[in-house]
Amino acid sequence: MSDQLEYTLLYWPDIPGRGEFVRLCFEAAGVKYREVNDVAKLQKLLSNKDLVGLAAPHFAVPILRVSAGYDAESASKKVKSETGADIKDAHATHYISQTPAILFFLAPRLGLLGDVHQLSGLDRDVAVAQLHQLCATALDLNNEVHDSHHPISVSSYYEDQREEAQKRAADLRTNRIPKFLKLFETALSQDGAGLDQKKQGARRVWGSKTSVADLTLFQVVDGLQYALPKYMQRLKDQGEYENVFVLHSDIRAELKGYLESKRRLPYSNGVFRYYPELDDA
Amino acid sequence: MSDQLEYTLLYWPDIPGRGEFVRLCFEAAGVKYREVNDVAKLQKLLSNKDLVGLAAPHFAVPILRVSAGYDAESASKKVKSETGADIKDAHATHYISQTPAILFFLAPRLGLLGDVHQLSGLDRDVAVAQLHQLCATALDLNNEVHDSHHPISVSSYYEDQREEAQKRAADLRTNRIPKFLKLFETALSQDGAGLDQKKQGARRVWGSKTSVADLTLFQVVDGLQYALPKYMQRLKDQGEYENVFVLHSDIRAELKGYLESKRRLPYSNGVFRYYPELDDA
Repeated sequence: MSDQLEYTLLYWPDIPGRGEFVRLCFEAAGVKYREVNDVAKLQKLLSNKDLVGLAAPHFAVPILRVSAGYDAESASKKVKSETGADIKDAHATHYISQTPAILFFLAPRLGLLGDVHQLSGLDRDVAVAQLHQLCATALDLNNEVHDSHHPISVSSYYEDQREEAQKRAADLRTNRIPKFLKLFETALSQDGAGLDQKKQGARRVWGSKTSVADLTLFQVVDGLQYALPKYMQRLKDQGEYENVFVLHSDIRAELKGYLESKRRLPYSNGVFRYYPELDDA
Repeated sequence: MSDQLEYTLLYWPDIPGRGEFVRLCFEAAGVKYREVNDVAKLQKLLSNKDLVGLAAPHFAVPILRVSAGYDAESASKKVKSETGADIKDAHATHYISQTPAILFFLAPRLGLLGDVHQLSGLDRDVAVAQLHQLCATALDLNNEVHDSHHPISVSSYYEDQREEAQKRAADLRTNRIPKFLKLFETALSQDGAGLDQKKQGARRVWGSKTSVADLTLFQVVDGLQYALPKYMQRLKDQGEYENVFVLHSDIRAELKGYLESKRRLPYSNGVFRYYPELDDA
């Protein structure tokens, strides 16, 4: 049944943003997905007039639509017009919001749990939780980067909070990013408890197979290199976070086909923005 | 095997903070847990000298320690001194960081997925993902509340960012909290797709049984009532978010024994703080 699922990523056009974490999962797994990037359609969906209850979208895209292989539109109409009896039909089209919830719904279905499949029972559940924790922390950093150019209000322009943004970005560079990168470096260390990693060959967060946590780390580091190029180059030259930068290039090589395609959108005005005044002087 | 697990919550003393989301799970499920609240011990653990790799703590507590029913200290020593061969022993004591990762490791083990157990396959996985998305959004609000008194830097004092905090708190009250509460209200609406809720009786996020999402919502609303008493009372009086406030009192009644015990710590200087100048005038 899970093989026949149709996946649709609902996300804004033109920016990679938080949709990119989901897109990378499909691209790395080589699993077919569709996209809906039409602003009017997305805004209608986000207005919460069609979907209520737990399925109601959470403010913002990305949203993942999952349907069981037939006309999703007619299935979702049934939800609106009927109750109770047709609950099974209603379930044929599902909507999941919140990036981490989407990632951990998809990861086991797309084979993106690294070498965790070698484990079972409690060991497996803990390993999944630890991949989850690493994604959560990488997404926290993603949010902190966003807040560095919008420290006062997400609904105001950057230009109206530029002064506060410079203070917050200084804190991001001095205190926050080094703290996160140090943690990622530790998570990627070869002595990691429970890790079965060879001295040579691909090094991933869990074993040698790319997981959702590797992809999430890659994207955050990649975005930071766009947003803070001088600063990130300085950190790379310092050599303190070698594993992190190696992982970044490894994943870049693994996803070369996708990253060089038109499907990979350029950074612009999303989470990762380039404001020279927020970078190293 | 999972019945014999020993759970230990590692969290700061004296404040409910993010540890409370985990504590509420054990208390609601009536499952025994221990706590480590000794600051020196926690700081040693957080220094990442003992644990590396994926198990390394993520900056901050809460951390959940799970052990399979024997001496956790000696098991974790084995991890340090040996590699590879003894990986099974090493796995006997596990550490999980990040509140959402802990919650979704615990929820299925503690029976905190509401009535989701009535579903199977894709339907079940989607329902779990939707509970996850609701927890993620409630925890986002929790973070925004924290950032409202620390909009510039988490490592500086409130007093040094009071001016910015007043701007940010105004935005929180005017734009952010109503947006979140409206969403929670929608998630709790009786017409929710996939929800099988009776017109009468207990109303929970998923069916009639309390889930991790109900507990997380409860705690955020409860904390907000402490931090912004005038503001929250005004919203309650307006009657716009009735389901949210009903859920809050229902859970308060359900957890009465715990909430009136000494184990429930008073709010003070954590995420939820009472600064009169950040509340309604």
